[in-house]
Amino acid sequence: MARRSSEPPISWLMRLALEKPGLISLAVGFTDNETLPVGEVAALAKKILSRRDTARAALQYGTTAGLPDLRHELLKRWQRQDGTRPNKISAEDVVVTNGSQQLLYLVSEVLCDPGDVVLVEDPTYFVYLGIVEAMGIRTAGFDGLESLKARLQALKNARRMARVKMVYLVTYFQNPTGRTWSLEQKREALAVLKHYERAAGHPIYILEDAAYRDLRFAGRDVPSFKSLDPRNERVAYTNTLTKPFATGLKLGYGILPPPLRRAVLRSKGNHDFGSSNFLQTLLARALAGGQYDRHLPEIAAAYRRKRDAMVHALDGSFPRPARYQSPQGGLYVWVELDAGTKTGAGSRLFRRALNAGVLYVPGEMCYCADPARKAPRHCMRLSFGAPTVAQIKKGIRLLADALG
Amino acid sequence: MARRSSEPPISWLMRLALEKPGLISLAVGFTDNETLPVGEVAALAKKILSRRDTARAALQYGTTAGLPDLRHELLKRWQRQDGTRPNKISAEDVVVTNGSQQLLYLVSEVLCDPGDVVLVEDPTYFVYLGIVEAMGIRTAGFDGLESLKARLQALKNARRMARVKMVYLVTYFQNPTGRTWSLEQKREALAVLKHYERAAGHPIYILEDAAYRDLRFAGRDVPSFKSLDPRNERVAYTNTLTKPFATGLKLGYGILPPPLRRAVLRSKGNHDFGSSNFLQTLLARALAGGQYDRHLPEIAAAYRRKRDAMVHALDGSFPRPARYQSPQGGLYVWVELDAGTKTGAGSRLFRRALNAGVLYVPGEMCYCADPARKAPRHCMRLSFGAPTVAQIKKGIRLLADALG
Repeated sequence: MARRSSEPPISWLMRLALEKPGLISLAVGFTDNETLPVGEVAALAKKILSRRDTARAALQYGTTAGLPDLRHELLKRWQRQDGTRPNKISAEDVVVTNGSQQLLYLVSEVLCDPGDVVLVEDPTYFVYLGIVEAMGIRTAGFDGLESLKARLQALKNARRMARVKMVYLVTYFQNPTGRTWSLEQKREALAVLKHYERAAGHPIYILEDAAYRDLRFAGRDVPSFKSLDPRNERVAYTNTLTKPFATGLKLGYGILPPPLRRAVLRSKGNHDFGSSNFLQTLLARALAGGQYDRHLPEIAAAYRRKRDAMVHALDGSFPRPARYQSPQGGLYVWVELDAGTKTGAGSRLFRRALNAGVLYVPGEMCYCADPARKAPRHCMRLSFGAPTVAQIKKGIRLLADALG
Repeated sequence: MARRSSEPPISWLMRLALEKPGLISLAVGFTDNETLPVGEVAALAKKILSRRDTARAALQYGTTAGLPDLRHELLKRWQRQDGTRPNKISAEDVVVTNGSQQLLYLVSEVLCDPGDVVLVEDPTYFVYLGIVEAMGIRTAGFDGLESLKARLQALKNARRMARVKMVYLVTYFQNPTGRTWSLEQKREALAVLKHYERAAGHPIYILEDAAYRDLRFAGRDVPSFKSLDPRNERVAYTNTLTKPFATGLKLGYGILPPPLRRAVLRSKGNHDFGSSNFLQTLLARALAGGQYDRHLPEIAAAYRRKRDAMVHALDGSFPRPARYQSPQGGLYVWVELDAGTKTGAGSRLFRRALNAGVLYVPGEMCYCADPARKAPRHCMRLSFGAPTVAQIKKGIRLLADALG
C-alpha cells in the first residue's frame, strides 16, 4: 500500500499553509473558530467528570460498536430528520467511528477487493479518491442520473458489472460542488441501481456521505437515501457528529445494513476496537440534552454570513465568464473559470495566488482517475468555513488580482 | 475482507460477558476502575476549556501526525525511559494514533501485501492475529531466539525470504505470557534479523509493541528495541498513552523509521486524517504537567495487589501440575494445565467455568495459524486488570472447582 499511495493533496495543501504564515487559506475545509461551543463542552465535561460513577464509566474502555446511549440518540435523531421509523432499522445498526471518514474507509475496505469498481460523482470529495487509490479500487465517474445510467450500461456491455460494488455519494451540499440531491433524484438512482443489480449478481450498495447535512443555512432539509431503504438492505448512511459541533472531538457514525455492519465491526475491532468512550459520553449528552441541536442555528448564521461575503466578493471582482452558485449549506463554492484558465498546482494562476498569499483547491484534484473521462482543468474549490469574513473578502480580491 | 475475516475472539468474549451479568471476567484485558485519574482529568479538562484560546485550539481539527506539543513530550519521555538521545530520532518521527492498536494496523497495512509473512511470537496478542488474518498476511510463529533463527532458516531454504516483511513482538509483560524481553535478547534478535536481510533483499522491520511497559510493578525497566536502533532504520516502536492512565481517552503513538512514517501518515490521512485534537491536548498537558507520571505508582500498587491475589489464589487452589509465573507487570497470568486438560471454547472446562460464572481466554486463541506449529490446547490467559481482589479470589476458586 505504501508504494500504491501518493501523498494526499490535503497534506500538501496543509504543508503549504503552514510554511507560509499569514496565507489566507480558502483551501482546507476546516470549520468556523468563533462559534465553537466552548461553554457547552466545558459544562458537559464538568458534569461527566464531577461524579465518580459517570467519570469512571467515561474513562474506561467501551465496546467496538459504540456507547449504547449514543447509538440510541443517533437513531432517534435520524428518524426525526427523515420523518420515518422503519421497524427494520434499530440502534443495533448504528456504528460509531472516528469521524465519518473512518466509516468511509471501513465500508470500502470490507466490501471491495483490488480491481473492484466504485462509481463516484465527478468531481467528488478528494480524500475519498485517496482511499480508493490506496486500496487499488477502480473508479467510474458520473455527473447526473443519465450519466450514471450510461456508465452502468457501459460496464454491463463490457461484462464488468460483477466488479461493481458500490456508489459513493456526498448527498448534501456536495464537496466540492455544493449541490444537494433531491428526493426524486434519489428515488430514481435507487431504481437504476436495482435494475443493474441483476447483471452484477450481488447487491450494489450506496455509500451515502451526509457530512454536510447539518450545515444547512437556507432552504429545507431533504430526506436521505436511507429513508428510501426501510428494509435496511442497500444504503450505508454515514454522517459526522463533530463537523457541526467541534471537530476536535472527532466522532462520526453510520447506519448500516446488517451484513455490512457486521463486517465493518470486525474490521473496526482490528483498527482500534472502538472510539474514545469519553468523547462518546460527551456527545451522547450533548444530543440528549439538546446542546447539539441548539448549536446548529448559531453556526448556520455564521456560515450564511461567510457564504454571503464570499459570493458578494466573487460577484464584485471575478471576471466573466466565471460561473459559480451560491450554496444553501456546507462549506464550499465551486468556481468554473473560462475554459482556457488552468487552475492546477503547476499553473500560473496557482503560483500567482500563492505568491499573493491566498490558497485554493485546484478543481482537478476532485476528479477521479477514470480513463473514460477527462477532468476539466479550469475549476477551483473555495472554502468559506475557517477564514473570517475579512479574510474571505481579502482572499477573493487577491484571487481576482491573480486572475486579472 | 468481509469474507476473509472471522469474528474476533474479543467480541465473542465480550458478548458472553454481557449476556451473563454477574459473570466474573478474567478474560478481557480491561484496566482497573478504582484508580482511574478522575480528579486529574477533570482538572485538565477544566483548564483547557476555561480559556477561550486554548479551548478553541483543542476543539478544532489538528494535523494527521498529531499535536506538535504532544509529539515533543512523547519523544522526551522515550528518551528519558531509554536513557538515549540519538540525533536521528526527532519529534517529527512520532505519530499519534487512536490507541496503539491503530498503529499496529497501519504499519501492517502499508508494509504487507496479501501472502507476505510476519513472524510472531507463539503465543501472541490475539487481536494482532485478527489483523493479519483480515489482511491475508501469513504468520510464522516462534518461541525464543533459537526458534526465531530456525524459522528464518526454514523460510530461506524454502526461498520465501522475499515475502518476510516484519517481526511483531510484545516486548514488555507479553500478552499473554507475561514475559519481558531482556536487552541482551533484543540485541541478539536484531543481529539475527540483520543476517537474514540479505536473503530478503529488503529491510525486515521490528514492530515493537510496548503497550504494557508502563504497567510495571516490580523489577527494573529495560531499554526498548528502539534504543538499539539509533539510526532509526528498523524498529517501529509503538506504545499506548491511555492504558496506564484512562483507556476511555484512547490515544497511542509510535516512533517510526522515516519511510514507514511517511507511508503510515498517508494511510492515516485516509483512515481519519488525525486523532481527536481535544484528547491530544489533554494528554499533552498530563505529560508536561507530570500528572501522567505521578499516576503510575498508584496503578502499579493496585495491579501488584491484584497480581498477588491471583497468584496466591492459584497457589492455594489449582491442582498440580498447573504451571504459571508471577509477572512483574502487565495484566496477565498465563497458566499451563496438565496436557490432557483442554481449555478451548468447546471444552468441558470452558462450559463448566461459564456455568459457574467465570470467564477466561482459552490459550489456543493466542496461537497463530502456522501449519508448521501445533497450538497447545491446555493453556489459559487470566487477567487481573479489571476485576476486584474479591472477584479475583472468587473467580480462581470457581475455576479450581471447575477443574476438580
